[in-house]
Order: sequence, then structure tokens, then C-alpha cells
Amino acid sequence: MNPDIQTWIDQLRSGDVRTLARAISTVENRAPGWSELLKALFPHSGKARVLGLTGPPGAGKSTLVDQLARFYRRGNDNDNDKDKRTVGIIAVDPTSPYTGGAILGDRIRMQEHFSDPGIYIRSMATRGSLGGLARTTADVTTVLDASGRDLIMIETVGVGQDEVDIVRLADITILILVPGMGDDVQTIKAGIMEIADIFAINKSDRDGAEHVEREIRTLQSLAMRHDGWTPPIVKTIASQGVGIEELADAISDYEAYLQKENLALHKSVENWQERLIEMLRDALLEKARTQLGDGNLARLAAEVAEHKRDPYTLVEEIAARLTR
Amino acid sequence: MNPDIQTWIDQLRSGDVRTLARAISTVENRAPGWSELLKALFPHSGKARVLGLTGPPGAGKSTLVDQLARFYRRGNDNDNDKDKRTVGIIAVDPTSPYTGGAILGDRIRMQEHFSDPGIYIRSMATRGSLGGLARTTADVTTVLDASGRDLIMIETVGVGQDEVDIVRLADITILILVPGMGDDVQTIKAGIMEIADIFAINKSDRDGAEHVEREIRTLQSLAMRHDGWTPPIVKTIASQGVGIEELADAISDYEAYLQKENLALHKSVENWQERLIEMLRDALLEKARTQLGDGNLARLAAEVAEHKRDPYTLVEEIAARLTR
Repeated sequence: MNPDIQTWIDQLRSGDVRTLARAISTVENRAPGWSELLKALFPHSGKARVLGLTGPPGAGKSTLVDQLARFYRRGNDNDNDKDKRTVGIIAVDPTSPYTGGAILGDRIRMQEHFSDPGIYIRSMATRGSLGGLARTTADVTTVLDASGRDLIMIETVGVGQDEVDIVRLADITILILVPGMGDDVQTIKAGIMEIADIFAINKSDRDGAEHVEREIRTLQSLAMRHDGWTPPIVKTIASQGVGIEELADAISDYEAYLQKENLALHKSVENWQERLIEMLRDALLEKARTQLGDGNLARLAAEVAEHKRDPYTLVEEIAARLTR
Repeated sequence: MNPDIQTWIDQLRSGDVRTLARAISTVENRAPGWSELLKALFPHSGKARVLGLTGPPGAGKSTLVDQLARFYRRGNDNDNDKDKRTVGIIAVDPTSPYTGGAILGDRIRMQEHFSDPGIYIRSMATRGSLGGLARTTADVTTVLDASGRDLIMIETVGVGQDEVDIVRLADITILILVPGMGDDVQTIKAGIMEIADIFAINKSDRDGAEHVEREIRTLQSLAMRHDGWTPPIVKTIASQGVGIEELADAISDYEAYLQKENLALHKSVENWQERLIEMLRDALLEKARTQLGDGNLARLAAEVAEHKRDPYTLVEEIAARLTR
């Protein structure tokens, strides 16, 4: 192994936050050595519990995630050290590149937890990662996992296919809803409702919390989960710290259920089937791009745009030529 | 060519709506013959103008699209037949599969236009099309285009990467915003603001329309477009038909600009570069899936899940074996 990478890994595993930040950037930007780094880190990963938290814009996801992080940093009972967990947070923000909101929010949140090196927050911008955001998030999760964080929380706005793919990475998925968003359940991306292991109704002191709960119950009655788990509904007011312990309890319950039914490994195998296919797709595409060359691609695209060639036949021909 | 497909094409080109619906379903569901159908249809496509319309949930996209469709069906001036255009609408709804909202909305909207076969509406569900929605929408656009529709409008909620990819297909992209959504501009997916050729502020009789306009102008002042076009801002109240003609004028202006600067072909070549790469990626993945086999994939995924194998090296090995 590259000696540099071995040094990185040693520093990373010793808890050095600057090395962690650098390793994540390397992976996120596909900077030189990213692939070697991931290969070397993978054997150290697999110990962290991964929570995925998603919901519509304005549901108070960041506040809830911050409160949960604080809760886990305090530990669950009187024996403070026993349940205390180190936390990594990956915030995937669909913020415009104009406003730089992701980076700003990142800094503000980091400052809040500044005194506690046991909480590490990283924002990921969605721009520029055409279809690859879920993959990058997965890779960053591997880095955080290998660095020894006990708990990794991935928060994202639950509105697109990317976001569904991202929360799919998690061992436990929490869908955060809020009262008074009208047809909020309906603006949530198809597929998100189905994968929620736990529902949190945040800002539950607002009018309409019961209505949201009834809506969830109705949807639940329409479709049974394969694994027999009925996702509990927890009411929270994250800004006041209300319901955080109950939410953590619900998380524990589901963790115990996963353990008892041996579902965690099963879920992981399913996830890896998806991820391997995605990784293979990217690897093949990379090869295709290289072999095709930008000049060729531009020429072929022009022929198709001018309707001199049909793209469907063309792609079949290229694929046949590239593979054996 | 398969004689069945020739019959389809003849019926489709004669304007038969049932054949159109069947052809779209075939392409959307990747039913047998979909690829042959697209190959045969492609030479007949390329004549339609494609409008992409996107915006946040609740912006009134459907109403605006319906009003625009009516406007184009009436024709632009006194000589009713001259500017009258046939319209195809593709509505991409992020509606939960539980509620069946897409199909219901579809029926209601179809009924409204029932008396006019010159308007055809098709809803596409987002479920089940993992990462492939933009591609399917593009293929359905090809079908509508080849069927002889003059104008194709693609409407979608502008919140995810899928939606950015979908509106990228269009010749002309319209971003629909509404007053009073607070940080509405910021909840729009990064990348959408940049590709809007025209802004519509709908429900512009509400408080805050000026504020939205100022926000857009501010964002515009931060980034110049490569093509030198300054996207106009049109205020509409779609439910009352207000501003529709102005919006159509803005569309005409941009069409003229595209023509004058020869930008339409340039845009199309760029789009096809992206699309060819995506199609190639899918074709290669399909080959990979076939050659790998489900059983093998499950076994490898289990080995990775149990951390017996590192996925990064594994994927490199498979990719090397598959390609030449």
C-alpha cells in the first residue's frame, strides 16, 4: 500500500479531525488516490450504525439531527460513558450554488458543537454530482465509519430520487413530517413513505399534528411491510428538545428488532446488490468515455442532433464493440 | 422492419390517439419491441418544439400548462389556422404510489380537454424508474414528436436532480415561481435557476410578487449566461388566464433568439452528448447484469456485506473482465 495512505489511515483511526476532513474531500471530489483510500478504509468500516433522516423542506431536520446528536453525546443513562456515542453527520443540502447556503449552514452548525470533537458535521452540495450523489454519500459514510464514529446520521431533503437512494443507504430511516403543510405526505417523493422505519412528526405543537398522524396511519394500513415491522410515530418539538428521548427509544427498539430478526445483514446484502450495480455502471461508463473520446462523442452527438443517425442503434453498436 | 411496427407508425403518424397511448406505454414500460419502435420513430422526430416547465410544489404548474395549451390551440392571431399548434403534455408527478394521484389528476385534466384531440396529456409516475426517469421522459418525447405534435410541454416539480435532467431535455425551459413561499428560490434545486430561459411568477396577485422578482434579478446579476440571453420575467395568474399571452410572447422571443443565433442545434448537440452517454451507461449496465447474473451478484453482495471483500477492487475486476 502507498505509505501516504497508511499514514492517513493511522491518523484517521486515531481520531484526527483534520485528516478526516481531508479524506472526505478526497473521496467527495474524486481527487487523486480516492479509490486507493476507499479500498484501504473499507476493512475498517462496517461498525457504525447509519441513520438516514429525511423530510420536506422546513420540517426542521437539522435541528432534530442536532438534538439527537447531543442526546447521543450525553449517553442514554446514568453511566455516562457506556452509551455515549461519537457522531458523524452528513448533511445533503439541495441549496443553490448561488447562495452558498450549504457551506454557511455548515459553519454555523459546526460552531454550535465546537466544544465537542465527538460531533463531526459535513455538508455535501448536490451540484455537479450528476446522478452520483448517493454514491458519493455512501463513500463518505465509509470514511466516517472507518474513522471510528459510532453513529452516522445522513440528513437530506426527501423530495427526489437522489434522496430516496441516499436514505436507502441507512440501517434505519426516519421520515420527518410537520403539521400544516397541507398535502405534505403527497409532496414527499414516492418511495420515501415506504422505506421509513420510524416517523417523526416535528413541530408537533402546531395545529394539524393529529391530522398528519392519521394520514400516516391510513397509508400504513394500505401497505404491509415485508419485514413485519410497524413504523412507530414519534411526536417531537426539536427546537425545545421535546420528544428526542422518545425518538432515540424508537431507534433503539428498531435496532433491537433488526438484531433479533437478523435483518441488519439482510438489509446490508440488499443495499450492496444495488450499490455494486451502481458502482459497476459508473466503472463501465468511465471506460466507455475513455475509449469513445470526447471528440468522437461530440461528432456522434452532432450526427444524432441533425437526425443523420438514430441514437438507439448507435448505442447498441458502441456497447457491443466495448464489451466481450 | 417488423410489419407490426410499420402499422403502428402509420397509425401514429395519422394522429390516432389510442395508438399514441399504446406506443408511449410500450416505451415507458420497456415492453417488448420498445427499442425497435424508438429506432423506427426517430427519423420522424425532431420537428416538435419542446418546452420544459418546472417549479416548486404548489406553484400552479398544471394550470399554467393547461392555459398555455389552450392558448396555442386557439392560435396566435386572427388567422386561426396559421399559428395553431397541436400539443402533447408530459406531466411528471412525484406523487406517492399509494394515492394514485398521478392517474387521477391525469383523468381530470384529460376530461377538461376532452373536446379537443389536439391536446394530449400523459402523466408519468416517478416510481420504479430508478435514475431512469429522465431517459424515459426523453423517449416518450420522441414518440410524441414523431406522432406529429407541434409542441411538447414537459412539466415537473423542480426539486431533484431527476427534474433538472428532465428539463434539460427541453429546447426552452420555464421556471415557475410563486410569491410568499419564503425562501422559495432557495428550495429550488441547484442547477434549475441556471437553466431557466424564462421565469414566470405565477399567482402574481399575491403579496410578495415584487420580492420574488427582485430575488431573481439579484441571482441573475451574479451569473451571466454563456449564450448572452437575459431570461425575462413574466407575471401570470394562470387560474384567471392572466399573463398567458405575455408568456407565449416571451417563448416566441426566445425561439427567435435560438433561431437567430443558431443556438437550437448547438443545444441539441449538447443534449445528445449527455443522452448518448446515459444511454450507453444503461446499455453497458444491462450487459453487465446479464453477464454477472443475479445469483453471482447476490453472492458477491453478501461477501461485501460481511466485509470479506472490498467492493472497490471487486468492481474494478468485474469491469476489466467485461470490457475489452
